[in-house]
Amino acid sequence: MPANAPRRDHKWVYLFHKGGESMRNLLGGKGAGVAEMTRAGMPVPPGFTITTEACLAYFDAGKARPDDLDDQVYSALAEIESATGKVFGDPENPLLVSVRSGARVSMPGMMDTILNLGLNPETLRGLTERTNDERFAQDSYRRFIQGYGSIVMGVDSRAFEEIIDEHKRRLGKDNDPDLSAEDWIAVAADFIDLIRTETGAEFPNDPHAQLFGAIDAVFDSWYGKRAVDYRDFHNLPHDWGTAVNVQTMVFGNLGMSSGTGVLFTRDPNTGEKRLFGEYLLNAQGEDVVAGIRTPSKIDTLQQSLPDVYAKLDEYAIGLERHYGDMQDLEFTIEDGELYMLQTRAGKRSPAAAVRIALDMVEEETIDRFEALRRVEPNQIDALLHDQIDPADEAEPIARGLNASPGAAVGRAVFTADEAAALGRSGERVILVRPETSPDDFHGMAQSQAIVTSRGGATSHAAIVARQLGLPAVVGSDEIKIDLDAKCFRARGTTVADGDIITVDGTAGTVMAGEARLVRGAFTEDLGRLLEIADDVRRLEVWANADTPEEAATARELGAEGIGLCRTEHMFREAGRLPLMQEMILAHSEEERRAVLDKLLPIQSADFHGILKAMRDLPVIIRLLDPPLHEFLQGVEDLQEDLAYLGPSEADVARGVAIRRMIVRSRELAEANPMLGLRGCRLGIVYPEIYEMQVQAIIEAAVELKREGIYTKPEIMIPLVGHINELKVVEADLRQTAENVQRATGTEIDYKFGTMMEVPRACITADEIAEVAEFFSFGTNDLTQTAFGISRDDAEVKFLLKYFEDGILPENPFQVLDVTGVGDLMRTAIAKGRAVKPDLEIGICGEHGGDPDSISFCHSLGLKYVSSSIYRVPVARLAAAHAALAEAGTETRNLAAV
Amino acid sequence: MPANAPRRDHKWVYLFHKGGESMRNLLGGKGAGVAEMTRAGMPVPPGFTITTEACLAYFDAGKARPDDLDDQVYSALAEIESATGKVFGDPENPLLVSVRSGARVSMPGMMDTILNLGLNPETLRGLTERTNDERFAQDSYRRFIQGYGSIVMGVDSRAFEEIIDEHKRRLGKDNDPDLSAEDWIAVAADFIDLIRTETGAEFPNDPHAQLFGAIDAVFDSWYGKRAVDYRDFHNLPHDWGTAVNVQTMVFGNLGMSSGTGVLFTRDPNTGEKRLFGEYLLNAQGEDVVAGIRTPSKIDTLQQSLPDVYAKLDEYAIGLERHYGDMQDLEFTIEDGELYMLQTRAGKRSPAAAVRIALDMVEEETIDRFEALRRVEPNQIDALLHDQIDPADEAEPIARGLNASPGAAVGRAVFTADEAAALGRSGERVILVRPETSPDDFHGMAQSQAIVTSRGGATSHAAIVARQLGLPAVVGSDEIKIDLDAKCFRARGTTVADGDIITVDGTAGTVMAGEARLVRGAFTEDLGRLLEIADDVRRLEVWANADTPEEAATARELGAEGIGLCRTEHMFREAGRLPLMQEMILAHSEEERRAVLDKLLPIQSADFHGILKAMRDLPVIIRLLDPPLHEFLQGVEDLQEDLAYLGPSEADVARGVAIRRMIVRSRELAEANPMLGLRGCRLGIVYPEIYEMQVQAIIEAAVELKREGIYTKPEIMIPLVGHINELKVVEADLRQTAENVQRATGTEIDYKFGTMMEVPRACITADEIAEVAEFFSFGTNDLTQTAFGISRDDAEVKFLLKYFEDGILPENPFQVLDVTGVGDLMRTAIAKGRAVKPDLEIGICGEHGGDPDSISFCHSLGLKYVSSSIYRVPVARLAAAHAALAEAGTETRNLAAV
Repeated sequence: MPANAPRRDHKWVYLFHKGGESMRNLLGGKGAGVAEMTRAGMPVPPGFTITTEACLAYFDAGKARPDDLDDQVYSALAEIESATGKVFGDPENPLLVSVRSGARVSMPGMMDTILNLGLNPETLRGLTERTNDERFAQDSYRRFIQGYGSIVMGVDSRAFEEIIDEHKRRLGKDNDPDLSAEDWIAVAADFIDLIRTETGAEFPNDPHAQLFGAIDAVFDSWYGKRAVDYRDFHNLPHDWGTAVNVQTMVFGNLGMSSGTGVLFTRDPNTGEKRLFGEYLLNAQGEDVVAGIRTPSKIDTLQQSLPDVYAKLDEYAIGLERHYGDMQDLEFTIEDGELYMLQTRAGKRSPAAAVRIALDMVEEETIDRFEALRRVEPNQIDALLHDQIDPADEAEPIARGLNASPGAAVGRAVFTADEAAALGRSGERVILVRPETSPDDFHGMAQSQAIVTSRGGATSHAAIVARQLGLPAVVGSDEIKIDLDAKCFRARGTTVADGDIITVDGTAGTVMAGEARLVRGAFTEDLGRLLEIADDVRRLEVWANADTPEEAATARELGAEGIGLCRTEHMFREAGRLPLMQEMILAHSEEERRAVLDKLLPIQSADFHGILKAMRDLPVIIRLLDPPLHEFLQGVEDLQEDLAYLGPSEADVARGVAIRRMIVRSRELAEANPMLGLRGCRLGIVYPEIYEMQVQAIIEAAVELKREGIYTKPEIMIPLVGHINELKVVEADLRQTAENVQRATGTEIDYKFGTMMEVPRACITADEIAEVAEFFSFGTNDLTQTAFGISRDDAEVKFLLKYFEDGILPENPFQVLDVTGVGDLMRTAIAKGRAVKPDLEIGICGEHGGDPDSISFCHSLGLKYVSSSIYRVPVARLAAAHAALAEAGTETRNLAAV
Repeated sequence: MPANAPRRDHKWVYLFHKGGESMRNLLGGKGAGVAEMTRAGMPVPPGFTITTEACLAYFDAGKARPDDLDDQVYSALAEIESATGKVFGDPENPLLVSVRSGARVSMPGMMDTILNLGLNPETLRGLTERTNDERFAQDSYRRFIQGYGSIVMGVDSRAFEEIIDEHKRRLGKDNDPDLSAEDWIAVAADFIDLIRTETGAEFPNDPHAQLFGAIDAVFDSWYGKRAVDYRDFHNLPHDWGTAVNVQTMVFGNLGMSSGTGVLFTRDPNTGEKRLFGEYLLNAQGEDVVAGIRTPSKIDTLQQSLPDVYAKLDEYAIGLERHYGDMQDLEFTIEDGELYMLQTRAGKRSPAAAVRIALDMVEEETIDRFEALRRVEPNQIDALLHDQIDPADEAEPIARGLNASPGAAVGRAVFTADEAAALGRSGERVILVRPETSPDDFHGMAQSQAIVTSRGGATSHAAIVARQLGLPAVVGSDEIKIDLDAKCFRARGTTVADGDIITVDGTAGTVMAGEARLVRGAFTEDLGRLLEIADDVRRLEVWANADTPEEAATARELGAEGIGLCRTEHMFREAGRLPLMQEMILAHSEEERRAVLDKLLPIQSADFHGILKAMRDLPVIIRLLDPPLHEFLQGVEDLQEDLAYLGPSEADVARGVAIRRMIVRSRELAEANPMLGLRGCRLGIVYPEIYEMQVQAIIEAAVELKREGIYTKPEIMIPLVGHINELKVVEADLRQTAENVQRATGTEIDYKFGTMMEVPRACITADEIAEVAEFFSFGTNDLTQTAFGISRDDAEVKFLLKYFEDGILPENPFQVLDVTGVGDLMRTAIAKGRAVKPDLEIGICGEHGGDPDSISFCHSLGLKYVSSSIYRVPVARLAAAHAALAEAGTETRNLAAV
């Protein structure tokens, strides 16, 4: 049937007792919920749902309701009238209804609820007589006019509030409850005048006109700007449509045996199994939400209305069992009678999510697999880090990129040296810099958090912070740093050197002073949940770690290997940098080899520590990757140093050394260092460097073997783009490795492989697999080269604009670009495995810790993802989710997993 | 049959009269040539050829001759003995032979010829008696020892020359001819002692041992370093193998009715139909090649030996007709008797190649398609080479043989290695050598021109220069080269290493300093040839041009469109740069728009000129591409400028302006500008720039349409990596274009398309084709991003090492990397055409002018290649070659093309 054809015999309207959870797509979440409660025999005010299909038909027909919809609405109304004994539009005993939108998932930006629909001057009289409460009736009427006037007829809601304020001024009354029936009559009259003036239309008195006006307004709100933006942002389809729920009004504001409230079936903060919620007596729903009166805790209802509380408890338990999940309920009490208005899965804190999931497995409400699904991988991340106490109301003084999660408090310091000194002395400090560089590492490592005013999510500061597990807010251009004065200004506040600040890396905010924190921890509950995840997942989870300490932490958090050990970080440590610089300044291969001989035992000790920490597990060690000039001081800094030299002999010697470094820095300078002399290109131009590194690795493994410790070193040659690069380097290094083994008479189980990080490597993966024993996708560089974007420049200069304009849906340096970069990966895997079916393939780019990207890696059939250390628990759960998703949505299908 | 199995019944040896041209692969070029001449009844000294298969079997067996080869050689020798009446090793009437290598194609670096093989103390007596010339016999003997000793036994040839020099000193004689028979006897004795000392082996006296030693040496030379390098460089397979030619010696040095020479059947410089060659009376072949004596022009042979000349003329005409191509012949006259030693297709200058090809079509020797094949595309380039401006009055400092036409300016260098290194790094160098050898090829290939002080028009230097299309002046004995001091003196001027000189290969002169050059002429012959090419090719040839003048030149040279008009060049012109800088320094979009308004009419005039020059043809205009900071002065320069400012009001204002530029330069500075804020990213961040450009383009087209000139502007949006980039920019610019059309009431036929220059664009070409109306491959950037290599850095820092080590066979920035970059292109074309079957696809990277890359583009089914202007004629021919290659190697298949 074509979309636009009339659907004479189509069912557009479902009474609540005809619907149910299985019809969620047709009836929307709210409609399905009330239907389910109705069928379960709970006291739900009668009503009906107009389907999402009706909404789509409405738009298909150019915003016209399907021909037979109105008839079906009339029939449904008649059924409600029978059920309630009230009649829609009857001046004696009028039926009043609420009208709500309700899409498949809850969606901000959809239409607000309209209450008391059906009121007009005639039915108002009936309501007054029936309730015997004129003030209530007049208040209800003006609320309806106000709601309908603003929501359906589009009059600015502030204009209504202004009229109320005027009357209060005129009457000398301060609060709404002080206004009498007569006062509300005057207000309502002004409302109606306002609507006439603003819209040129009369406020509709015909209840049916009111109803169909409200229905159309719900439909129209599906394409309201906020709703469309929300769907675009969350990648939700626009062809779902919304349902419309029309329900008999019940009143929580008919006195002290009436009321309204919300209820969670468990504590959404801790997950504890107890009713958790709030209610207000003598109030309508909007009063609770508006926050004008302070609601009471749900427990007190046991005293005030014990029968109602008992029923509520019974329904809560029933609904939770029915849905198999913690529920978020809305209810109203009318004259001592309890009515259930809504049920849906309740939002919860990460800790509660874990606890509820595990408890429900204990209670045999859900199975282990479902428990995994109940926790989002990113919630784990929040759980592991300190967070700002939600009750704390500290106002941010600056906002930036939430580059690394968690919260921390400490003294602001403005140089890495100070951070290092104070940090070592036990002071809690937060390093604030315009941006950071490898030279700042020692200070960052001693800080509680990092703040920068420049740079993006993949800036040096961001990467190192994540690696160190420190909260970081980067690229906050609200922060104006004055390095000379050692202070910064932001939103009118000045923070001086040593002042206490709080950083929220999860939200991306900076606060002056000390905010209250909730401590993060790897809890026992989390451990239990991740054990289940480990049973389910197929992907192994490795970690990126550069030191023995990091490796040990990674292992504790569940890492099954090291996917990336960056050897360059070792050279940047104090005491080693001078040797590294000496090596770079060497005039000949011979000189260079002499310095490398001094570096060899140091490197060997590094590898000894890491390999030992990871005994029996694989450790992928990447040979030197960055351009050499990164190890020299910047030319400008050096030139400044020159200015401070005196005529002493020592200074003259130092001057010569500095000038040599300036010359060499200039020689090594490159137009585009990202694409320059780095990676295996270094290993080809200076083979002696890689030879030293491989010698150190194998020597460390030999020594450990003699200690009875079995290791699995895997040597990774970076930035290969052409098979011949790998061939030349691998042949030379295999020789080195064989020499060490021969010399020591010890055989080591090692591998040679390569990082897949330029497009050409992926395209020619079949050639490369002839030599490589493993591939590791370096998706940071692969993303840079596939897009032709330097992350150093892009995030500051144009990517922000790209996100704003919706040109890129997500930052491809955070969430793997499946279409482009993912296609290169797919090609590489297919070509590589065609040549070597058992090729070990994993990913060590930062995407290895991102749940969406992990899901994609699972679908690619990778062996492992290697994430930053503190993302290892996240990755374990994300990998399990991916396995579950693949096995199907039905729990029972998972028995075989 | 397995390669290593014995081949008992295999035929390894062919007598000359059993071979022929059709067996070229088996007998090699030389073997096939002499066989063909023998069968045509020409006087060829009897001999036989050992097949290339024997060579391969030799290597297959680990350097052992096939078992039955020796027997077949003995049988063949016996046949020659019968034919000549001489006997190999017979002291009375000894048969002497020459041994030469001979692969399928002529290949420098293979083994030199060994002459007089078969001589020993016994047979020497027979030779003396038979020729009755003891001096000749002794001279022949020492030549044999010298040749065999160096070529087969590996003794340094200079050691033999030193012995001769010693004897001359001892005897007080200056020249070789002054030495008597006795003197040569003493020399030969010393030679034999030298060989014993150097090799520890006795010089072999057994003629059969000599012969098999020489045969093995020929085989071994197939894998000699020079030969392997040559094959690698020219992409020739290593599994062809070489044949060995064994031929009865004839002697050109038996007095003044003997002689030896080389002959081209047409003038290899101009193509004129006349005998062209040189000869020496009373000389052996090596004397002509060595360039020690200056040979006579062939015409003079008509006087000295008219009968021989007549026969030579007859044979030349016959061989040319037989082979259907201009031939290069070697001949020897022994006692008035003419012997033909070799025939092969003659190397020729580009001009000669064109003329000969066209003449032979006229003569109905070959068809039009074959004529195309006879000219290499790169020869066209040489034809268009610079010439010295006739108005330039630079005085020559030396005169020599005008061995290869064209003129060039460059720095004098004195070793091939230096020439290679500097040339690859982009320096224009001229190689100056006493003479060149095959060892120098790598340096010659990287030079702008060649100068030698020795040798003739058929010397190595001359032949290679013509082949490479390089200007060359050879045999200029005015030039005194001091290789140690790296300089030369000529007519009182000293030219040191690195000094600029100018070479006029057309006139045969060398000038100190830089002379004015004019581009080589596009001759009428060339025009005729390219018209044939135009009929054959399927690829269109467009050009990259940025100005109306360039566009006009491109059109004259045959360009059928402009494939790349770089708008940034327009902004760099004097008078515009300040405006551009003002635009960049603007503080707001408003300010920027104000400056752009001033740039608009200038841009419009630019486009008016180019579109007019290309009326009726497509012009692809690329919107602004480079990072903005490229238009600002460097910070260091600016800071220097600041230092020169005084206290005057003007200087103070200038100081402020400079400081603003410094600040903005620093703001705009990027870590990797290649991957930064450029291309369409500029157009997204500053949409007003692109809007101005598009407005200018459409306005220009409108104005031209009003003048009655029809234009086809195609607007190219650069550096697109994600469809959304193109969508956003295209939508905005289409609006701009529509606005201009509406405002002027004129409709313009224009297109929007994109440059495919990052891998992600190729991978997602299906998405991009939804919006783009054309693709143009920017293979410069695509090569950079696919490899992850910055051209700016790589060619200086490591690519040289890559070529040396054979890691990359060719510079991927010159010859398209078919495996990697080519695969991305193939993907993009398939995906693009799947969405839009008639998508216009071309290439505008530098590869668009490279014949190999053009051939690949043809195979990809591109619509056009766009080359640099002066490569347009090259591209026209290369495109025709690609079409011919596709149609098949047989001329007759081409009738349908």
